[in-house]
Amino acid sequence: MCGIVGIADAGGVSFPLYYALYALQHRGQESAGITTFDGVSLYKYKDNGLVAEVFNADILSGLKGNVGVGHVRYPTTGAKIPENIQPFNFTFQQKKISLVHNGNLTNTQALRREFEERGQIFCTTTDTEIIGNIIVDELRHSSSMQDAVLACMKKLEGSYSVIVMVDDRIHAFRDPLGIRPLCLGKMHEGHIVCSESVAIDALNGEFIRDVKPGELITIFQDEVKSVQIAQASGSAFCVFEYIYFARPDSVIDGKLVYDVRRRIGKSLHLEAPVDADIVSPVPDSGTAHATGYSESSGIPFREGLIKNRYMGRTFIMPNQKARENAVRIKLNPVKKHLNGKSVVLVDDSIVRGTTSRRIIDIVKDAGAREVHIRVGSPAIKAPCYLGVDMPTREELIAHNRTCDDVCEKIGATSLHHISIDSLIRATGHCADDLCIGCLTGEYPLKINKEKACPRHIDFISGSYQVDLDEFEKKE
Amino acid sequence: MCGIVGIADAGGVSFPLYYALYALQHRGQESAGITTFDGVSLYKYKDNGLVAEVFNADILSGLKGNVGVGHVRYPTTGAKIPENIQPFNFTFQQKKISLVHNGNLTNTQALRREFEERGQIFCTTTDTEIIGNIIVDELRHSSSMQDAVLACMKKLEGSYSVIVMVDDRIHAFRDPLGIRPLCLGKMHEGHIVCSESVAIDALNGEFIRDVKPGELITIFQDEVKSVQIAQASGSAFCVFEYIYFARPDSVIDGKLVYDVRRRIGKSLHLEAPVDADIVSPVPDSGTAHATGYSESSGIPFREGLIKNRYMGRTFIMPNQKARENAVRIKLNPVKKHLNGKSVVLVDDSIVRGTTSRRIIDIVKDAGAREVHIRVGSPAIKAPCYLGVDMPTREELIAHNRTCDDVCEKIGATSLHHISIDSLIRATGHCADDLCIGCLTGEYPLKINKEKACPRHIDFISGSYQVDLDEFEKKE
Amino acid sequence: MCGIVGIADAGGVSFPLYYALYALQHRGQESAGITTFDGVSLYKYKDNGLVAEVFNADILSGLKGNVGVGHVRYPTTGAKIPENIQPFNFTFQQKKISLVHNGNLTNTQALRREFEERGQIFCTTTDTEIIGNIIVDELRHSSSMQDAVLACMKKLEGSYSVIVMVDDRIHAFRDPLGIRPLCLGKMHEGHIVCSESVAIDALNGEFIRDVKPGELITIFQDEVKSVQIAQASGSAFCVFEYIYFARPDSVIDGKLVYDVRRRIGKSLHLEAPVDADIVSPVPDSGTAHATGYSESSGIPFREGLIKNRYMGRTFIMPNQKARENAVRIKLNPVKKHLNGKSVVLVDDSIVRGTTSRRIIDIVKDAGAREVHIRVGSPAIKAPCYLGVDMPTREELIAHNRTCDDVCEKIGATSLHHISIDSLIRATGHCADDLCIGCLTGEYPLKINKEKACPRHIDFISGSYQVDLDEFEKKE
Amino acid sequence: MCGIVGIADAGGVSFPLYYALYALQHRGQESAGITTFDGVSLYKYKDNGLVAEVFNADILSGLKGNVGVGHVRYPTTGAKIPENIQPFNFTFQQKKISLVHNGNLTNTQALRREFEERGQIFCTTTDTEIIGNIIVDELRHSSSMQDAVLACMKKLEGSYSVIVMVDDRIHAFRDPLGIRPLCLGKMHEGHIVCSESVAIDALNGEFIRDVKPGELITIFQDEVKSVQIAQASGSAFCVFEYIYFARPDSVIDGKLVYDVRRRIGKSLHLEAPVDADIVSPVPDSGTAHATGYSESSGIPFREGLIKNRYMGRTFIMPNQKARENAVRIKLNPVKKHLNGKSVVLVDDSIVRGTTSRRIIDIVKDAGAREVHIRVGSPAIKAPCYLGVDMPTREELIAHNRTCDDVCEKIGATSLHHISIDSLIRATGHCADDLCIGCLTGEYPLKINKEKACPRHIDFISGSYQVDLDEFEKKE
Repeated sequence: MCGIVGIADAGGVSFPLYYALYALQHRGQESAGITTFDGVSLYKYKDNGLVAEVFNADILSGLKGNVGVGHVRYPTTGAKIPENIQPFNFTFQQKKISLVHNGNLTNTQALRREFEERGQIFCTTTDTEIIGNIIVDELRHSSSMQDAVLACMKKLEGSYSVIVMVDDRIHAFRDPLGIRPLCLGKMHEGHIVCSESVAIDALNGEFIRDVKPGELITIFQDEVKSVQIAQASGSAFCVFEYIYFARPDSVIDGKLVYDVRRRIGKSLHLEAPVDADIVSPVPDSGTAHATGYSESSGIPFREGLIKNRYMGRTFIMPNQKARENAVRIKLNPVKKHLNGKSVVLVDDSIVRGTTSRRIIDIVKDAGAREVHIRVGSPAIKAPCYLGVDMPTREELIAHNRTCDDVCEKIGATSLHHISIDSLIRATGHCADDLCIGCLTGEYPLKINKEKACPRHIDFISGSYQVDLDEFEKKE
Repeated sequence: MCGIVGIADAGGVSFPLYYALYALQHRGQESAGITTFDGVSLYKYKDNGLVAEVFNADILSGLKGNVGVGHVRYPTTGAKIPENIQPFNFTFQQKKISLVHNGNLTNTQALRREFEERGQIFCTTTDTEIIGNIIVDELRHSSSMQDAVLACMKKLEGSYSVIVMVDDRIHAFRDPLGIRPLCLGKMHEGHIVCSESVAIDALNGEFIRDVKPGELITIFQDEVKSVQIAQASGSAFCVFEYIYFARPDSVIDGKLVYDVRRRIGKSLHLEAPVDADIVSPVPDSGTAHATGYSESSGIPFREGLIKNRYMGRTFIMPNQKARENAVRIKLNPVKKHLNGKSVVLVDDSIVRGTTSRRIIDIVKDAGAREVHIRVGSPAIKAPCYLGVDMPTREELIAHNRTCDDVCEKIGATSLHHISIDSLIRATGHCADDLCIGCLTGEYPLKINKEKACPRHIDFISGSYQVDLDEFEKKE
Repeated sequence: MCGIVGIADAGGVSFPLYYALYALQHRGQESAGITTFDGVSLYKYKDNGLVAEVFNADILSGLKGNVGVGHVRYPTTGAKIPENIQPFNFTFQQKKISLVHNGNLTNTQALRREFEERGQIFCTTTDTEIIGNIIVDELRHSSSMQDAVLACMKKLEGSYSVIVMVDDRIHAFRDPLGIRPLCLGKMHEGHIVCSESVAIDALNGEFIRDVKPGELITIFQDEVKSVQIAQASGSAFCVFEYIYFARPDSVIDGKLVYDVRRRIGKSLHLEAPVDADIVSPVPDSGTAHATGYSESSGIPFREGLIKNRYMGRTFIMPNQKARENAVRIKLNPVKKHLNGKSVVLVDDSIVRGTTSRRIIDIVKDAGAREVHIRVGSPAIKAPCYLGVDMPTREELIAHNRTCDDVCEKIGATSLHHISIDSLIRATGHCADDLCIGCLTGEYPLKINKEKACPRHIDFISGSYQVDLDEFEKKE
Repeated sequence: MCGIVGIADAGGVSFPLYYALYALQHRGQESAGITTFDGVSLYKYKDNGLVAEVFNADILSGLKGNVGVGHVRYPTTGAKIPENIQPFNFTFQQKKISLVHNGNLTNTQALRREFEERGQIFCTTTDTEIIGNIIVDELRHSSSMQDAVLACMKKLEGSYSVIVMVDDRIHAFRDPLGIRPLCLGKMHEGHIVCSESVAIDALNGEFIRDVKPGELITIFQDEVKSVQIAQASGSAFCVFEYIYFARPDSVIDGKLVYDVRRRIGKSLHLEAPVDADIVSPVPDSGTAHATGYSESSGIPFREGLIKNRYMGRTFIMPNQKARENAVRIKLNPVKKHLNGKSVVLVDDSIVRGTTSRRIIDIVKDAGAREVHIRVGSPAIKAPCYLGVDMPTREELIAHNRTCDDVCEKIGATSLHHISIDSLIRATGHCADDLCIGCLTGEYPLKINKEKACPRHIDFISGSYQVDLDEFEKKE
């Protein structure tokens, strides 16, 4: 998973890009990068580490210009090599280009072979370089970014929210199914596109709207144009953005994430009520879900586990015992809240189950009489090919296990996952506009030999017709 | 403010000390240090920075031995120089000594002059070195730590929780008024003394009890002895440890901090009810208070402000505008929760008032109709001389201002501070056992020309009488 | 300018590559990089800084495999961006390729345009990526590195000594004029190619011979093959490698650099004798020249200036005055050697003349009666397009100035440059085998609108015929 | 060994102190520190590492004031702990004091015990803190630095050149035997005291004279005063400063080090002539000696070994083989200069002999027919207690071995050490003014049970009588 941002704004963009990446830091902690353009040259800086570790005031002051893009990357199992850190910068026929990408392509290998047969070399092992090649290949014959993005949408399979800066223009587009989020905001003297609306908030900008699936948005100075490149029969918004990944204060595809989570909490109570003493979240991601459960049930919300705010990536665990103990150092039980109590413990999801088991142990050690686990996602049964870092089928605790089996394995008094139906209702979207592949094993596009219910996609021969003023009126 | 820890445990103490300092990190983020002793030499490491920044596995592996002390220091306005980083290590007649201290002495200058007249030089500008000198001065004539700590208690004025390692023994003592916390726990094959019980929890140790005001505890291998050195007519537990400073999951002098804060929240509702739509904390420290208000009033608890978890010390604010904007990047309003709503916003305290005003601006910008501020501490009217970093009287917003004046100045719809009486009740202690000098201007000991209601102190000519097994039975 | 090395040797190559780069550090202090291959993957590390700063034992231990290449880069005025640090690593049809290059192409722009018309994007702004593209373009149709190198030699104009690792094979080739050095050595269980023979010495290897201009050498495990790809009517060995750039203990194209410099010193005496008290070098590069002058003249060799051995790249010069003073801190006059004396001061070359003037000032301030400057190169009148970092024509002090003008400008008592004829004689090569473009303005190949005396090049359709054992016997 | 400096100069001293430490870097590479005073506070910075690594422009800009002291420390076997890094800073009765010291005390333990009996604690394990205590102990009763330095000279045994800054005054004194060097120079608007004259040269200052053994110099703004505190019957200048330790361009106690070394070289020829082809130094410290041998003998000076200029402290040697190879990477033989030749190889000294053997191996491997070793010091037979880091008697190759034994052990064709008589003559001092304890085993003061020929010391009851203007005229 990644967070991306592009800004065009008078008065310098490096500091705004930095603050925006800060707001998107939860989408990726492995590396961070910014590229800006000052009318002549690209200025670039990127490194492994958190935004706060990678940049300092000197570096940001050196990133000149009023237009730029930024990126944060999630720690994935893949190749952690400098070349792979985004933005991906390159030149083509005097044009300075910088590209950032959130998502995962499912036909990378085939596309790579196609280009290599033409003599193309690859400097990275990222999907991003493939996207750059497709764009440039089209720009040889056409000077139109519409054509280039049309070529992308025809060739690329998988999820992709992309921002590409070509000299002083920012182009942003989202795959026809809209799998990963992308939204547009107004700055003081310019515009911003970014993964989540919290980045717009951080800059005190004004949220305009989500970029539509299949749409291309182009920003030049304070002007914005839009064109619909592809139109699908349905969307495939990732349901895990709502359950776990996005920040609760983000609004994604029209829905406030906090509200979705609170509604999930309420449904969890209605589906699986329990006569308990307190409702406690697993901090931090379970908090909104837990307030929903508490409100619906009337059982008091009380923090049974306090999170150490200072646990960073560099926390040292020299051996296995230390690693096991790490959960205890990260989450401290409030014994008085737990001792002798029946506790509803609300978590967002269960993946491998190892952390759940340890947390339940801690809560029981603190004296809890009963530990009722309520989970904000249905059981995860299948892998994600579209950008969420999930383990293999075999490593998922719910793979080939009933809910009762899992309950026993993690040591809970009772266990309930929200039903798929309630989850869909909580998102406020209809089932045909969501990707719930990891829950059902049926994906919204063809991937390998998996089951699929692919959306139909039409390509539209339009041209930029709408400038910002117009669509501001329309929206 | 500072956090201190001392551990004697078989199997190496550097990693346990590190984990304990992690749990105490909230008590000091400026510097961190650890000193250990392996029977022959001191091993020491300390630097400016967070625990996670100062130490790594290599450094910890080099800190050998089964006994050691650690320290984290709060960013104070004073001299940020390497010599001042604790532990303070020195040698005296072949003895290897390492000392850590939490608190603030009020007669430093006089004590310093006294020692300088005898030719003593000072390598640091800390109170800690003075304490070291008093101990050593006594140890010249006596080989008894009881005598040395008695000399300390007779000479030192102010607050001091001290842990001093003399070769392979850990000695811990607390000023006769018990102003700063200190507690004792059992490890697998040893013991721990530390500022707050969360450090014991982090090591999966067993909390035994608080160190008593005026008591000296000595740990040698798995043996613990105690002696009461001084006895005061009343304690002076710092009320701000409960309101703001300590972690909510700590138990201090017998009271769970979370509970105190929740009771404060309830009293805030009873004293100043309001007909509002939501109760929202100012994260993170207002959360427990807000749940109390919500429970008592029945108004739903809902987070109106989401805190960015990644804001570190290195966040860059190149100019005034950026600094003003920093609150916005740190705390993002959830517009849908606030827009058109009447909001009860619960904060732990108001010091200068600048942050409060900015937060209220953000909440109003997000569309809140009314913003009712409820504060978990009474108005702060006087400075703290005993270890909490507070501004001068003139900088305090409540200095020479009525509550209505402050309310107008910060732009709130209404403002209520908890009453001193309710606060005392919420702590569970009686008024004579608390220091509330910053709220009343009357202090529990004589300081400069301030008003005081000093406790009477008796010095006791006892000797170590109680070993661990005994007092474990007794407690 | 750069230093390059490629090694195939049983038992791991990362440490040998590191030691070799140490020996070549004088050829480039801006950045350093190593790429190795272990049969499956490339392992790569590169960064700005000296070899000692970029690498540590952990990093080197992580660079696995028995084959690899390395590179050090000179601080040039161009773009100091991470992407440009060599080795240049890429993949093509499953092949892992790593390329290092010393030299400068003169037709980069034309080649780049040609590739861009085919849709090629460029990740760097280096010549090296162009070379990679030409190689790969040929490898699409042919599996032969001979064909690929033939394509390079037909298309590339300028100077290029190249080492390219394609999976577990090291290929090394030198432009048909042999402008930059490259030589071959034997390791314990493998072979090494590198810019200068000192890298072979550092590894206790055995120098075999120089790579011939236009030759391709291929190393696979302990086997070496050679093929002559192109044959020129004459070479164009860079004369500045002998005068200044190479280490004195290197043997380049059959000539010991120290000897060349000593012979230059002798010729300087024969051409411009002077009745002086001492002969002193400008340390360090003038030492060999000065011993030659001293021996020929009988005037005692005595160091009049001592160089501070600790002046690093990080030496701080906060303002103009400090920068002017830097020469004084770097070179300290030995007053007793200079006071009242007539001094012959031998330097390797004069470029802008600013440093010379400051050094002469220092020597005069120390009391020297006469300062006779003797210079190991003829006056530099024209730029270098082939890899030596020289200023523009206008910045050269000898541009449009007579020797007397220059002498006056730098404040010397007398000034003599070695004649071109003596210099050529000192190198031991014939004039037709040297590039002396910067001295005459006439270059060995066509460059822009400069005068040229281009060598004729034949391309040879041979194939690898000679393995190591054979040519070891022949040499 | 260490290098020390103190400067009082209008216009800020931190940058001058930095440049001076650069010039003294050869005297100590382990740590570096600077303390300045701006009329109110001390500003201090010190860390392990080279001067260039420890300081940067930001740090230096923060070291405010027109008066300050600096220090570089040699890597010794002792405790490499932060507290021990000099300057040693402390306060006493409002006075801000900073102390730097070059030398080694021989009665540290006794002095420490004496102070500990009075209750004194020690923050470091250095001699420096003892000196600070003696000074302060006297300043309690007297406000006179003369009295304090008199107390030092009466109590301290061993070698000590000391600079102590007390508020805005710089006091510098040298032990009565003048074992370690110290000299005085004039700056633009102030003065400098430092270990070697090269630091004065680096600042373009004017050398005034050496500080005399037993003298106290006090600098205040642009005023300098002097008083003779003690007068010995003879000096004990360390002969190894001339042979090896000091920079060749320094003038120490009236003698240019380069000249001493060149005279040593001449004597080596006269004492042990040989019919050889070339004279080569072991770089860098043997160069001056070798030019002397070459001049006296008429045998050409030619570098047979070239030193890699980039070998830093961080050079990685992962195993024993690498460590053995390190000499080869550091010193590369110029084969053509050595092959088939008879070589006179001139080194400054032989301590353990291991390096000598490896160098001789390298020279022989390069084909030298004969390797005649000529050594600039007599055989080292005894330890140094006075500041030069030497191994124990047993580790010295000359301990209980004849010259022939050593010659055979290191594999030389012939070996000759300069005689003690010739060495003394070369220094230009008389035997009674030198310390040659490591050569004879007889020391200039009583140390343990060693043989001694102690100088007689008179203490003088004078007072500051001479200001700078006067003694400038006198000298």
